[in-house]
Amino acid sequence: MAAPPPTDSREAAAELDREDPLAPFRAEFLIAGEDVVYMDGNSLGRPPARAAAALAEVVRVGWSERLIRSWTEGWMDLPLVLGDRIGALLGAAAGQVAVADSTTVCFYKAVSAALDARPGRTEIVTDPGNFPTDRYVLESLAAQRGAVLRWLEPADRTHAPSADEVAALLGPQTALVTFTHVDYRSAAILDMAAITRAAHDVGALTVWDLSHSVGAVAVELDAAGVDLAVGCTYKYLCGGPGSPAFIYVRRELAETLRQPVWGWLGRRDPFRMDHGYEPAEGIRAFLSGTPPILALHALEPGIELVTRAGIERIRAKGIALTELAIALADAWLTDRGVVVASLRDGARRGAHVALAHPAAAALCAQLAQCGVLADHRAPDVIRVGLSPLSTRFVEVWDGLAVLRELLGGGEG
Amino acid sequence: MAAPPPTDSREAAAELDREDPLAPFRAEFLIAGEDVVYMDGNSLGRPPARAAAALAEVVRVGWSERLIRSWTEGWMDLPLVLGDRIGALLGAAAGQVAVADSTTVCFYKAVSAALDARPGRTEIVTDPGNFPTDRYVLESLAAQRGAVLRWLEPADRTHAPSADEVAALLGPQTALVTFTHVDYRSAAILDMAAITRAAHDVGALTVWDLSHSVGAVAVELDAAGVDLAVGCTYKYLCGGPGSPAFIYVRRELAETLRQPVWGWLGRRDPFRMDHGYEPAEGIRAFLSGTPPILALHALEPGIELVTRAGIERIRAKGIALTELAIALADAWLTDRGVVVASLRDGARRGAHVALAHPAAAALCAQLAQCGVLADHRAPDVIRVGLSPLSTRFVEVWDGLAVLRELLGGGEG
Repeated sequence: MAAPPPTDSREAAAELDREDPLAPFRAEFLIAGEDVVYMDGNSLGRPPARAAAALAEVVRVGWSERLIRSWTEGWMDLPLVLGDRIGALLGAAAGQVAVADSTTVCFYKAVSAALDARPGRTEIVTDPGNFPTDRYVLESLAAQRGAVLRWLEPADRTHAPSADEVAALLGPQTALVTFTHVDYRSAAILDMAAITRAAHDVGALTVWDLSHSVGAVAVELDAAGVDLAVGCTYKYLCGGPGSPAFIYVRRELAETLRQPVWGWLGRRDPFRMDHGYEPAEGIRAFLSGTPPILALHALEPGIELVTRAGIERIRAKGIALTELAIALADAWLTDRGVVVASLRDGARRGAHVALAHPAAAALCAQLAQCGVLADHRAPDVIRVGLSPLSTRFVEVWDGLAVLRELLGGGEG
Repeated sequence: MAAPPPTDSREAAAELDREDPLAPFRAEFLIAGEDVVYMDGNSLGRPPARAAAALAEVVRVGWSERLIRSWTEGWMDLPLVLGDRIGALLGAAAGQVAVADSTTVCFYKAVSAALDARPGRTEIVTDPGNFPTDRYVLESLAAQRGAVLRWLEPADRTHAPSADEVAALLGPQTALVTFTHVDYRSAAILDMAAITRAAHDVGALTVWDLSHSVGAVAVELDAAGVDLAVGCTYKYLCGGPGSPAFIYVRRELAETLRQPVWGWLGRRDPFRMDHGYEPAEGIRAFLSGTPPILALHALEPGIELVTRAGIERIRAKGIALTELAIALADAWLTDRGVVVASLRDGARRGAHVALAHPAAAALCAQLAQCGVLADHRAPDVIRVGLSPLSTRFVEVWDGLAVLRELLGGGEG
């Protein structure tokens, strides 16, 4: 957006929708109840219309008709086939991504594998604003291994530690450096390549959480030299509630790293059911149990939509939507006690905006009463998530207009 | 079944179907292609007809219309609500079962928690015929903790270690005793209560794998004093390919045992996103990541069918079906090189039958060519799985008749 976003009339926002090359994608989603303003697509993406059909199809054909034969007719490879397609959205060459388990379990596997690969090193570096499940997994594995967590306190509430700030904590004792690439509250984008370089400079490994990145911002895993990464698929990939997560392991590491949950689907020749675990080749060794086939079929349409739209266009619209949200917040909300708690540089901000207000929890409940859905993120953030494939510019306008109403008369 | 099963005419098998009180349940399944003889319902249960409708409904209402609001409108509790209903099939009072993750991940959590609760003890007792994923998880956790696996070699290929044989391996060094309740190849039912008592006598804990038990045979977890258990839901519970598994933790242990994959959904007050992991109360602490909501909805109809049919009637038909299979094997197959590798005492046999033959792998492939689906289980077992809610007696007849044809003229 070269021009500043319009804050003077809803019609100007509607004009942005008319000019939006991604606008036709909204018709690809199943949208029940047009009266809802949905600013939470980064928590649960809307259902692709084709998801219901994909589920009906896999029940009717794969499950009912082909039955157990389906395992050799595609199901066994589905976690890696979809993994490759997600990898393509993340700058990862084929054969490095698998889809399985929850994000929490994938993160546990990734961190455990990384720590085991750096025996004798005792420190894990992360930030206290990292997503809770990541912090809890790190606590658990640190306790199991007698490692120590080094918390990088953010300079301010935008939670955007720089590579230099990270590097200052690193040394020969550092085993692992792990952050969420796009902060789940502030949307700050961390410098993945620079932080990874800093980690490698001291011989540490990196695990990146891409939950708020995949399908929203450009990521270049291979080029950045990232070691391991995980991410959630029910946000911008629209895989459905609790859809399976993905795990990326850099090709040359996959043969040496060992994940801890040894299961039959990660074993070489699983149906020989042999004695003694031997990891399968490559990323398949990061699988454990039987893949969640129905959920994988529900996930495929969302991956397809993001692939077809293209990350470049999605990213451009994500910036434009968040620019509009910030401009409206400046025009309407900051004199009503709201603080924009996201970076103002669009290039360093994901596809959501954090609006801080002391009464954020109550405001989110009131917004929901008015049909405006946004997430409260403790303690004081109203998180405005703007999924580029299904969110309209007028939706941003309408949602923030309701918030302005709720906040009453401003100082201006 | 007081009378011996009929082996003289297909019509007599058809008569068993007409007399079968569970016969109407077959209509509750989506059965495409009536020409297939399905003897693999213990690998992948057929789809309940209502599964497709349940998936369509959760996409349309929960996901599309209610969106993120669904989390507080039922989704958060779904793993425990379905857990209680599975628990009711297993003699477990409410509040002790959660549904989440794969069986492999659930087993990993259960074993890890049990080992951590017995520090200083170094041995895990299991049998080499245990299901591969269980063995691999045990290997991994034994390696992580410097524990040793004590393998109870079976007396014969029916894989039915007695409590006395188990007890002979136990001592003050035993941390954990773990078996699959119904052997995945032979269908031998182990004496859960007696083996659990033997483990408790030396101060060890037990983890039982109920994958081939749940929905097929009677289990009394609470009465048997079992400590932890896990199981698969895509076999007799018909939850769909890769459906989420369940984990049982005895009530008084749930507050003290700690599972290793600390995640936000297992934390007290997860949406406070507080610093520092504190386990939720009770079985909820055994959750980790976001629950697989679509898969949980697909699983509910299968649980409902099993509950409505009742384990007693299911068990009786399971015995009758396997009795018929064994009688037909005796009449047709044993003089053609087949060995019945399951116990002949119906009370000690689950709902499948192992037929051993040196060419089992090739025979299973040939059976499939003829529309008869059974599993090859390495090295030499044709596994005839007979899911009581959807398998007819004539199906057993027809399937084994094809096997007889394939084996050619016998000695008799």
